[in-house]
This record gives sequence, structure tokens and C-alpha cells, in this order.
Amino acid sequence: MSARAGIVVTGTEVLTGRVRDRNGPWLADRLLELGIELAHITICADRPEDMEAQLRFMADQGMDLVITSGGLGPTADDLTGEVVAAFQGRPLALDEEMEEKIWQILKPLMKRWSHLSEESIRASNRKQAMVPEGALAIDPAGTAPGLVVPPAEGRSGPTVVVLPGPPRELHAMWPAAVASEEFAGASAGRSEYEQDMLRLFGIPESEIAETLRVAEEQIAGFEDLEITTCLRRGEVEVVVRHGAASDSWPALHALIRERHGNTLFSEDGSTVDRQVFDLLGGRPIAVAESCSGGLLSARLTELPGSSGHVAGGVVSYSNTAKAELLGVDPALIEAEGAVSPEVAEAMADGALARFGADFAAAITGVAGPDGGTEAKPVGYVCWCVKDASGTVLARDIRMPGDRTEIRDRSTTVAMHMLRRLLRGEDLPV
Amino acid sequence: MSARAGIVVTGTEVLTGRVRDRNGPWLADRLLELGIELAHITICADRPEDMEAQLRFMADQGMDLVITSGGLGPTADDLTGEVVAAFQGRPLALDEEMEEKIWQILKPLMKRWSHLSEESIRASNRKQAMVPEGALAIDPAGTAPGLVVPPAEGRSGPTVVVLPGPPRELHAMWPAAVASEEFAGASAGRSEYEQDMLRLFGIPESEIAETLRVAEEQIAGFEDLEITTCLRRGEVEVVVRHGAASDSWPALHALIRERHGNTLFSEDGSTVDRQVFDLLGGRPIAVAESCSGGLLSARLTELPGSSGHVAGGVVSYSNTAKAELLGVDPALIEAEGAVSPEVAEAMADGALARFGADFAAAITGVAGPDGGTEAKPVGYVCWCVKDASGTVLARDIRMPGDRTEIRDRSTTVAMHMLRRLLRGEDLPV
Repeated sequence: MSARAGIVVTGTEVLTGRVRDRNGPWLADRLLELGIELAHITICADRPEDMEAQLRFMADQGMDLVITSGGLGPTADDLTGEVVAAFQGRPLALDEEMEEKIWQILKPLMKRWSHLSEESIRASNRKQAMVPEGALAIDPAGTAPGLVVPPAEGRSGPTVVVLPGPPRELHAMWPAAVASEEFAGASAGRSEYEQDMLRLFGIPESEIAETLRVAEEQIAGFEDLEITTCLRRGEVEVVVRHGAASDSWPALHALIRERHGNTLFSEDGSTVDRQVFDLLGGRPIAVAESCSGGLLSARLTELPGSSGHVAGGVVSYSNTAKAELLGVDPALIEAEGAVSPEVAEAMADGALARFGADFAAAITGVAGPDGGTEAKPVGYVCWCVKDASGTVLARDIRMPGDRTEIRDRSTTVAMHMLRRLLRGEDLPV
Repeated sequence: MSARAGIVVTGTEVLTGRVRDRNGPWLADRLLELGIELAHITICADRPEDMEAQLRFMADQGMDLVITSGGLGPTADDLTGEVVAAFQGRPLALDEEMEEKIWQILKPLMKRWSHLSEESIRASNRKQAMVPEGALAIDPAGTAPGLVVPPAEGRSGPTVVVLPGPPRELHAMWPAAVASEEFAGASAGRSEYEQDMLRLFGIPESEIAETLRVAEEQIAGFEDLEITTCLRRGEVEVVVRHGAASDSWPALHALIRERHGNTLFSEDGSTVDRQVFDLLGGRPIAVAESCSGGLLSARLTELPGSSGHVAGGVVSYSNTAKAELLGVDPALIEAEGAVSPEVAEAMADGALARFGADFAAAITGVAGPDGGTEAKPVGYVCWCVKDASGTVLARDIRMPGDRTEIRDRSTTVAMHMLRRLLRGEDLPV
């Protein structure tokens, strides 16, 4: 049986949604890699009694490991160390060596903020250097040390790994936590799982559901597969967790390939972004976008190394910008409208020419909530992807969703059109 | 005492971080508006026993209301209705009227996906029309009905509101849930709270911590304030929850204003994005960006109505693009480097001229992970904001963080510089 883990995310700002939790997803991936099963994530405010209740829940549910994030800062509402120490029955004590380490980190920062009082810094310093007796302290990546806290001698329950909230610090400190004896002890019995992911674009989730019903009838051992499907940014993801020697996974994989070959675009976990990156192979690409307002450029430049092929982009929000920066004929805009297949292609032509690019992608549409007409309602979007030799793929559809969704998903459609163009394929009907 | 609520988010794709939960934050805001205290959010996979454990936890913690999101879809892993029905002791029964309603929604969709089998659609239809006896069914916004399920007669515990995962559907169905008698009964005793938010930019969180320590000594009734501070996209947010007639909140507000007047930029909850939008008052703005890759344009066009002032932007990722599209002198790039205060200003000049804008913002920097040098390491970013009359504000600093953080936060700095420029203020020292 594999070890089970839970994650407790603390922070009123996370509970109330003002800050998005980025640690849960990251820790989920790390646990999976280790063969540890993640069962529960809980989020609470900076209230000791709620945090204690969540730790108790994790223990009651038989978690072997609990990882907390957040609540290690200098302010009075940062209480995780205290709560975990009490929960595990290990009183806090000042770790003077750690106090000195933190002070060495804080000293240079004081120069930058010349108006800070040394007294208040010293007080925070001491608070952050309190370590539960018998626990392992992990050196800070920022200013807060982490902790690995097993239950006190003679008690049972999960080992609690206490990490700071800022993702960069949590990432940097995680390897030390995993390398500890305390962590190894708690996660013994982890088992070997593998996870595979298929990604499809251009079919509804219910079609996959139907295929899974067929698979259930046809494939022996289907019940040993843990399958989840979800819609994400307009794509359908199918994630399958299975034992390393499973025969049912290859059978399911083949069935999906057979039934959905034309929409199945990723069988190795790769994203369409990564595929487009690789397919470009350093050849320059340019973007012309209107309703997506820069999101396609931002998406193309998200991966490190994208400067090797992204020449740049124009956000031509106004008609003047379409004419001046992309050379779109104002008469064409007048005749067809700024949101039209014709203007989309003219924008792509402009991007190819102005940036001297080999490939271009153009988007123009009505993101709303205003600006829709009967002929071109909110959600109506036109795309054109084109290469310097004149090969072109174009599409125009009405997308569902609100302004944010329309803007975001219009970039997904563009990425898939680019992928088809780069592979020399037509668009599916 | 105010009513307390918990949120149970279901879905393996959310637990494992492949899909970000957007319902928790949205529901948190709605609960706050209703004067209902949110105490816990929990996330679980599509496993009935884990979901049941989380519902039990919410009941044990004395929640009056539990809201679930997700797990109402057509696939076999969508089990929320079943689990909640069992938990509340109310057996499921087919609601034929609801079955017919759903079928009327599905019928037109079948035309779009001509290859779907009617049988599989009908099966999903029936599954989604199962309603716990005595529960209220809420008409679907997509294809899945929602539920408001009180505990069975003679049992105690929270009323459970069951809503679908897609945010648009959940938003559309929420008002019907709140309007129900069952909801009102469970949330009786809600009390009147107010929440205020202050936003500061350009100071470390520890400075606010120090001010709160001073406040604790000076302000009577300070202990009745529920204060959380957090760092978000480079800004410090201070959120204070207090009774409507509190005297201590105005006293704290005055103290923060007195100590941090120069960095306190929002006292009414407004974001810097909204402030810049309003300060522009329809005057055209253009963007020239390099390392942020389109994110500043995307941010400026995020708010509805931004087409009233955003002329457009150039993402000049390559040096050629800087020269061709923004008219930056290649000799200047050669002499100073593409990442330099001089090139940032030339980019702003180019944006002003090419778009005929009244205001321009330019960003150029090293987002990493590669491309850093000793003089210009990863994280070194130059900004310039300028108006058509020649007033200019410029800054260059080395930012901490990874590629994603550097790209994102560089847009925050630009927004604050724009705000200063538009208010006729200098940058703080």
C-alpha cells in the first residue's frame, strides 16, 4: 500500500481567494513522483483552531505525511510553527544557530530599506528561529526556516513538513525535507505508480466518456486503472494512473487512438505550447492580435528560450494600429469590419512582412461584454495562421464564455492552428 | 454569532493541480457579502470515501452550510450527487421533469456533434436528473442541475449546496441557491461584517507588521479587528474585517495613512489597474514591451471597456523588431544593450509615435533563466513611462524571482509608474 499524504495550505489571503495557491499543485506533482498518494488538500485562515482541526482531520484520515505551506512569516498572524509544535507534542525552543543564520540573511536587506528599525527586525528574527524539540529545521531560502516534525516519542500520527508560503522558497527547501530521515520514515511503503496523460482538442468531454464505457466492456483489468478526464483551457485531458506492468493501459491507449486519432494531439504529456516551440525549430514567428490583447504573444514567450524564435507581436487594438503597424488596408476594415476573416488574414500578412517572420498567427474578435452585434456577437472570433510561402489555415467561430474565457481560449485555438500548419496538416472538419 | 460555511471542491484534476480552482475564491466573496464566515476549503479527488470524509469534517467543525463544486458531469467519476444524498440520508430518485429539461438542452447540442450516439447522451441525461428526496433541484445553466440538500428529517448537520464545477454555470446558479428557503434556514444568524482593504506598493511586509505592533499598543479595541496582510503580485494588501460600528478601524486606517502615505495607493479596494483605467479617461495609451512578452498589453486590455483608451502595443522580442516597429536606433541598442534605460525610453518614444498615443509604457529586461550577464543579471529590468509632452518617469532594478514572477511583476511596476505619471507625481525615492 502506498503512503498517503495531505496538504494544509494556511493563510486568510488564500482561503478568501485574494491569493491563488500555487503550492498545492506543485507539491501534488512532487508527491506523485515519489509514489506517495495525495488524498486531501485543505485550506484555512490564519486561525490556530482551524489549522489544528485540519491537522486532526489529516491524522484521522490516516495520512502518513502532512505538508503545510504558509504562516512562517514575521507577522503575528503567522502561527504554523506554534500550532504544529503543539499538535505533535513537541514544545518550541529557540534555535540560536538558526537565529544567527537568519540574521545573516536579514542584515544586507536592512541596507535596502534604510528606514527599518533594527528592533522590529530582531524580534521577527527570533520568532522565526523557534524550532520544536526533536524536529529537523531546514535552512531558509528566504528568511523563514522550514521544519520536519514527527509526532513526539510514543505518539502516533503523521509527520508534518512545515514549509513557507512563497513558492520559490518552498521549491528550494523541498529537497532537504525529502532527504530527511523523518520524511523517509513516514513515507515508507510508497509504491510504484505510473501516470500517463493524453490530450485531445476539438471534441466534447462526453465523447471520451462514451469511449471509456466501451473500454470498460472490452478491456480486461480496466477497473485497475484510475482515470480522470477534464476540460482545461478548451482541451480534454485524460489522465490514467496505473501499475507499472499494467496491460490494460496500453489497451485503453490504443482504443483512444483508434477512436479519436484526429483530435488526439499529445500522448507524452507534452503541451501544445511545447509542441509548437519544437516544431518551429528556431524559425521566426510573429503575432498580430486584437481581442486577445497580448495573451498570445505572452503565451508564446512563456517558455524559456522562446527568444530563439519569437520575433515579436503587435497588439492592434485600434483600427489605426491595424493600419499603421500592420499595414491593414483601412478600406478592407471599412468593408468587412475589424472582426472578419479578411482582416485576420491581412493582420497575419502584416505580421509576416513587418517582422520578417516565417510564420504568423492573427486573432481578431469580440471579447465583450460590449461591442457585439447580431451578425458578430460577443464571442465571435476570427483566426488566421499563415507561413511566408502563402500556406494558410483560417477559422471563425462563436466561442462560449465570458470576456476572460474568450480571450484565453482564443489563444488555445491559435496554438492548435499553428501546430497543424507547422505539421503540414489541414484543420479537422 | 455568524453562520459558518465550508467549501468542498471535488475533482482529481483540481486536487492534482492540473486545473486551478476558481470557484473557492468566487464563493468566498459571495459568502462574505452575505455575512457568512468561510472557515474551511477542502479539495479531494473523485473518490466517494474522501469526499464523504470531507463532508464529515465540515459537519464535525460545526459548519452551518457546505457548498460543493464539481462532480456533476456525465462521466462515471462524477459522484457528488450520490455522495451528498447518502451523507444527508436522502435517497436519490429520478426527477422526470428535470430529465426532460436537460434533454431539451442537450437536443440542439447533438446537431453540433453529429457523430454522437443518442443512447450515451440519454444515459448521461438520466444520471444528471437524479435528485435526493426532499432536496431542492436548481435548473442547470449548462446541463447539470444543482441541489440544495438539508439533512434528512430528524438529523442535524449542515445544509449542503451542490453546484457544478464550470465557473460560469456555478455563478449562474448561485442566486437560486441563495434564494432558497433551505439556504436561508441554514444561514440564519449571519451577522453584519464589513471588510476594508488597503493596498500599498513599494514597502516590505515587515514594515506593516511593525505598524500593526504600534497599533496594538495605541488603539483601543484593536483586538476586535481581524487583520490579514499579504504580498500579492508585488503589492502589500491589508484586509481588515470589523463590525460596522467599529471605532478601531478608522483609528488603524489613520495610523497607516500617517506612517505609509507615500506607498498607500488604494483605500477603497480599487486595484492599480482600475485606477490607471480611470486616470486615463479615454486618452490613448500604447505599450512597448520585451521581456514581459505581451503581458502588459494583456493586463491593460483585461478590463471591459479598455478599447476606449488602449491603442495597442508592440512586443519587440527581437532587436530587429525594436528597430523596425518602434524605430529604436540599432546603434543605440549596440552601444547600450537591448536591456538598458536608454533603449526603454526609445521604445516608449516609438510607441508614442507609432500609435499616436498620449501615454506610453515600455519594459525591457532579462526574464531568464538564460541571457543574464554580470552587469545585467537575470531579473534586471528597465522601465520607462512617458507622455506626449515629454514628461518621463524611469526606473531600472534587479527583481527577485523566476521567469514567471519577473515577467508578471514587471507589469505591476509599470502599472504603478503609469499611475504616478497620470497623477503628475514623481516616483518615490
